[in-house]
Amino acid sequence: MTVVDIHGHLSAPAELYAYKSLLVASRGAHGREGLQLPDEALVAASGRHLDLLRAHGTDVQLISPRPFQLMPSEQPSRIVRWWVRANNDVIAQVCRLFPDVFRGVAALPQCAGVGPADVLDELERCVTELGFVGCLLNPDPSEGVGEPTPPLGDPWWYPLYAKLVELDVPALVHAAGCRSVRETYSSHMITEESIAILSLAESRVFDEFPELKIVISHGGGSIPYQIGRWRAQRLLEGVVVEPYQRSHTPLVERETFDASLQKLWFDSVLYSQPSLELLLRTVGPERVLFGTEAPGSGSPIDVTTGRRFDDVKSLVDGIDWLGDADRTRVLGENAQKLYRLSV
Amino acid sequence: MTVVDIHGHLSAPAELYAYKSLLVASRGAHGREGLQLPDEALVAASGRHLDLLRAHGTDVQLISPRPFQLMPSEQPSRIVRWWVRANNDVIAQVCRLFPDVFRGVAALPQCAGVGPADVLDELERCVTELGFVGCLLNPDPSEGVGEPTPPLGDPWWYPLYAKLVELDVPALVHAAGCRSVRETYSSHMITEESIAILSLAESRVFDEFPELKIVISHGGGSIPYQIGRWRAQRLLEGVVVEPYQRSHTPLVERETFDASLQKLWFDSVLYSQPSLELLLRTVGPERVLFGTEAPGSGSPIDVTTGRRFDDVKSLVDGIDWLGDADRTRVLGENAQKLYRLSV
Repeated sequence: MTVVDIHGHLSAPAELYAYKSLLVASRGAHGREGLQLPDEALVAASGRHLDLLRAHGTDVQLISPRPFQLMPSEQPSRIVRWWVRANNDVIAQVCRLFPDVFRGVAALPQCAGVGPADVLDELERCVTELGFVGCLLNPDPSEGVGEPTPPLGDPWWYPLYAKLVELDVPALVHAAGCRSVRETYSSHMITEESIAILSLAESRVFDEFPELKIVISHGGGSIPYQIGRWRAQRLLEGVVVEPYQRSHTPLVERETFDASLQKLWFDSVLYSQPSLELLLRTVGPERVLFGTEAPGSGSPIDVTTGRRFDDVKSLVDGIDWLGDADRTRVLGENAQKLYRLSV
Repeated sequence: MTVVDIHGHLSAPAELYAYKSLLVASRGAHGREGLQLPDEALVAASGRHLDLLRAHGTDVQLISPRPFQLMPSEQPSRIVRWWVRANNDVIAQVCRLFPDVFRGVAALPQCAGVGPADVLDELERCVTELGFVGCLLNPDPSEGVGEPTPPLGDPWWYPLYAKLVELDVPALVHAAGCRSVRETYSSHMITEESIAILSLAESRVFDEFPELKIVISHGGGSIPYQIGRWRAQRLLEGVVVEPYQRSHTPLVERETFDASLQKLWFDSVLYSQPSLELLLRTVGPERVLFGTEAPGSGSPIDVTTGRRFDDVKSLVDGIDWLGDADRTRVLGENAQKLYRLSV
């Protein structure tokens, strides 16, 4: 069995972030020429990363830029484009250096107020020229403030969905930073995943794009835990004025909320076994893709287990009711099919 | 055993909402005199509500205004005050009509941009004059748009916390509406509960107010499901620059995230048994208070069980690993102690 982790991020040398610092400080007066990093610097920056993957039993990892570093709401938008392009190029270089381990997942140059049509060129470049197998999709390039971006169920996003279907690559829903004082980037990601699912579940997106492949990060935000609320909500549809006084016969026959979830995929980036079990029981093992984000937010050691939180494979292995076939699906087969990997 | 549901909302006749319509339409030119509803109208509006409680085996329910109807971001702020006062008065009247069943939980006249000091008079009135046993606490009176309210860990909220301690009543964290196009009021509530927990857990609020009683609605938003993320996050503290490259020895000794959660309470308004089990295992039965929100968002019938989603007692009863003593705590004892009920 090949263990495929679909949710990893680039481990880069400090020079990459120094380039970002230059872009932001100069507001695009410098930096147009991009960034060239020597192979040795990337090999050095990947050392601990590769050690961790080996220790966790991961064979292949899909890596994208660190989302919280993507700065989609910076101005002018060209510095976002240059920054995203530099990240994607460095990832392509790392994938060439470690072709057995890494596959590239692109960031898109999404910016606050910029429509999806303007990011298709970079997606196409990454897939057709760099051999990337998917992309990140930030549902909130406004980063929690300012003019809200339409949620993912809105036809505003259709140009991107059409391109994803044309290229036959999945998008991993993953917010970037957060500029509101009320949330950190980390909690904002959970919020945005929940909004994404609810919006897609109520939309006609999968009627219009039945082949669209959307993966939701971090086990689907709050949705699997709060699923009773959304199952009930679906049945309240068409009941007006004072729903709690009515007989709750829905006026409109709709698919169940669970059926809506079956059009999505979910990664396993949940750092506790009971939560992972809840996800698997809620959406089924055929809809869950192994993901760890390692190394990253989950890399501290959990003193209760003695393992790092992001050793998610040990959690999957610990679920005794999960049969071998399902375990193999979750740990690699689902990803190999969805991302059309040759590993 | 007395079954106490701490999370119920008022079932009111249409005349209550007609009063709100008058307030908003006239922007406070009319309506200052408040609202008088005849007892008969309230008895009639409570019929189905009482039937449902009986069917579910609930003995006592704490009722507050319907949060999504509270309109905290309407202007001028006096119409919010009049509206909140009318709701609280109707609740007091219902409690007098059904003294064995209902206890009052106040809404506060929180408005976008209005500080907590300005809502203390209504809290005091409800507790000392109307005999209410607690209040709602809306962490986001801005309803998802505009100038953000400081999160609940901010000292901005201290005047309210001081008054809650002085009166010795719990506050139930519960958002109201949402005016962002990205969330519904219902999903915004889940978001706000998560923000509330994370903010309180990182704050000094319980050092300053060790007697403060805060209950989080809807099983704690996303937090119990995403707990691995927050356990790990706590250990990353003080690790700077590139946390994923470091050895993860925290620079600051802090209590664990789980210990922070032990300063809060959580209601059981989760409409699926696996989620409820996750909550109970995560925070323990001594921190969970029975709540249903019935009748409300969970009142449709779940065809998989043949019961209404908000028949949460049947879910609690179905958890075979929950001992009798713990079941009694969850279904009533915890609430009786926390709210100092005489039932």
